[in-house]
Amino acid sequence: MRDAFARQGVMRFFGARLTLVEPGRCEIELPFRPELAQQDGFFHAGVVTTIADNAAGFAALTLMPAGSRVLTVELKINLLAPALGELALARGTVQKAGRTLTVVQSEVRVRRGGEDKLAALMLATMMGLPSSSA
Amino acid sequence: MRDAFARQGVMRFFGARLTLVEPGRCEIELPFRPELAQQDGFFHAGVVTTIADNAAGFAALTLMPAGSRVLTVELKINLLAPALGELALARGTVQKAGRTLTVVQSEVRVRRGGEDKLAALMLATMMGLPSSSA
Amino acid sequence: MRDAFARQGVMRFFGARLTLVEPGRCEIELPFRPELAQQDGFFHAGVVTTIADNAAGFAALTLMPAGSRVLTVELKINLLAPALGELALARGTVQKAGRTLTVVQSEVRVRRGGEDKLAALMLATMMGLPSSSA
Amino acid sequence: MRDAFARQGVMRFFGARLTLVEPGRCEIELPFRPELAQQDGFFHAGVVTTIADNAAGFAALTLMPAGSRVLTVELKINLLAPALGELALARGTVQKAGRTLTVVQSEVRVRRGGEDKLAALMLATMMGLPSSSA
Repeated sequence: MRDAFARQGVMRFFGARLTLVEPGRCEIELPFRPELAQQDGFFHAGVVTTIADNAAGFAALTLMPAGSRVLTVELKINLLAPALGELALARGTVQKAGRTLTVVQSEVRVRRGGEDKLAALMLATMMGLPSSSA
Repeated sequence: MRDAFARQGVMRFFGARLTLVEPGRCEIELPFRPELAQQDGFFHAGVVTTIADNAAGFAALTLMPAGSRVLTVELKINLLAPALGELALARGTVQKAGRTLTVVQSEVRVRRGGEDKLAALMLATMMGLPSSSA
Repeated sequence: MRDAFARQGVMRFFGARLTLVEPGRCEIELPFRPELAQQDGFFHAGVVTTIADNAAGFAALTLMPAGSRVLTVELKINLLAPALGELALARGTVQKAGRTLTVVQSEVRVRRGGEDKLAALMLATMMGLPSSSA
Repeated sequence: MRDAFARQGVMRFFGARLTLVEPGRCEIELPFRPELAQQDGFFHAGVVTTIADNAAGFAALTLMPAGSRVLTVELKINLLAPALGELALARGTVQKAGRTLTVVQSEVRVRRGGEDKLAALMLATMMGLPSSSA
């Protein structure tokens, strides 16, 4: 899992950290950098979506057979508040692990001045592939 | 518009280019770099989503009063095929420009060996804010 | 609220009951009838969506100024399991009540042989309108 | 196809008609009835979603092996304008037919005084199941 995370160019590029992985759950933290902002200085919606998607994907992967790969089939995210702060925290939680498809909810909170505020909610569908199909 | 694009840290960080802006439409190109990949070497779903979201947002902005800012209310994206290639092209097209909300479809194609393949479809809701509310 | 529910032709047509309304929450029950089925005898996805949407809309309405009307801006639903049973129960819970938009999660459970099973998860955006704009 | 449509209790219940089926496309018409309305006299969002979902599902089914059944994995719909009129027309068009999953766009128009107005856009994921797995 941590190996797959490390191989994700984009997570390293963003400076994201995998802070928790347990069956059906995953958390990712991302410190703010100006490169991750949209024009008003908030975390860009795409960046918020990226960490929410990753938290969802890794949460799904924890319940798949060893060696599986996970692909995002689709995702939907509602951005509830401007993602303004020094740290974004994404948490993915599996809602239903099926044979083919896994449905995951993610939420993203943004920490500002020591206080965490809900910034986004995601509902996503992940698909597991056997490793050999790579 | 191009100024707002240039101020987006994340678009510069990714190396994305705004290649077309006209009323109700926007196109963005993003050359592949390993930093934009997920673990299998494709464009990361979050990166695909980011440029689709940007194309949608700028397409919406073209139909808003001058000086408006645009925020993503929510987005949904289906990833149709592995985004494997040397260039990703996102195109946003406004479907309905309302007083408060604008609905936009985006599609992302990936170019590989000179051929473009549809990789993702997005349906998103954008909200315009008067510039002074910043 | 109950008046608005009663005026909804479709809820009466379906035979749905409003079983709980409190600030930020709403529950709706729908007994199974063959008219509500798809071809395999489950509650039709559209019917499941309809009660989830209603529970979401009424949950949102509880937090809007008196006399407001509520419109569904968009909704997304994942159908997690075949909705097979004698009763469908939808519960909507407001996640963020904004000035213009309210984001709501709904879940639908289906009761079969006394056991409730999660059948669907929804994430939706509602908009409030002043009553006078009707 | 028409047989599966006819077996859908809910389509008969609503009074919907299957008006076109061809490879990758399906159209459904639904005349207005007060039972299909929400509190303001428009087609209920859930009803609009139901016919959009059906058009999507049947469009997907046209490209699946004979005898397949189709299930909605998830759907997302944006309601663009009040669905006020005497007839709702849903059209589903397959965007990507995969081995396991098929992605479909649907749109719903509402006819009022001879004029059709775009009322909703849907993006949905369908899954095919072999008939024997019923």
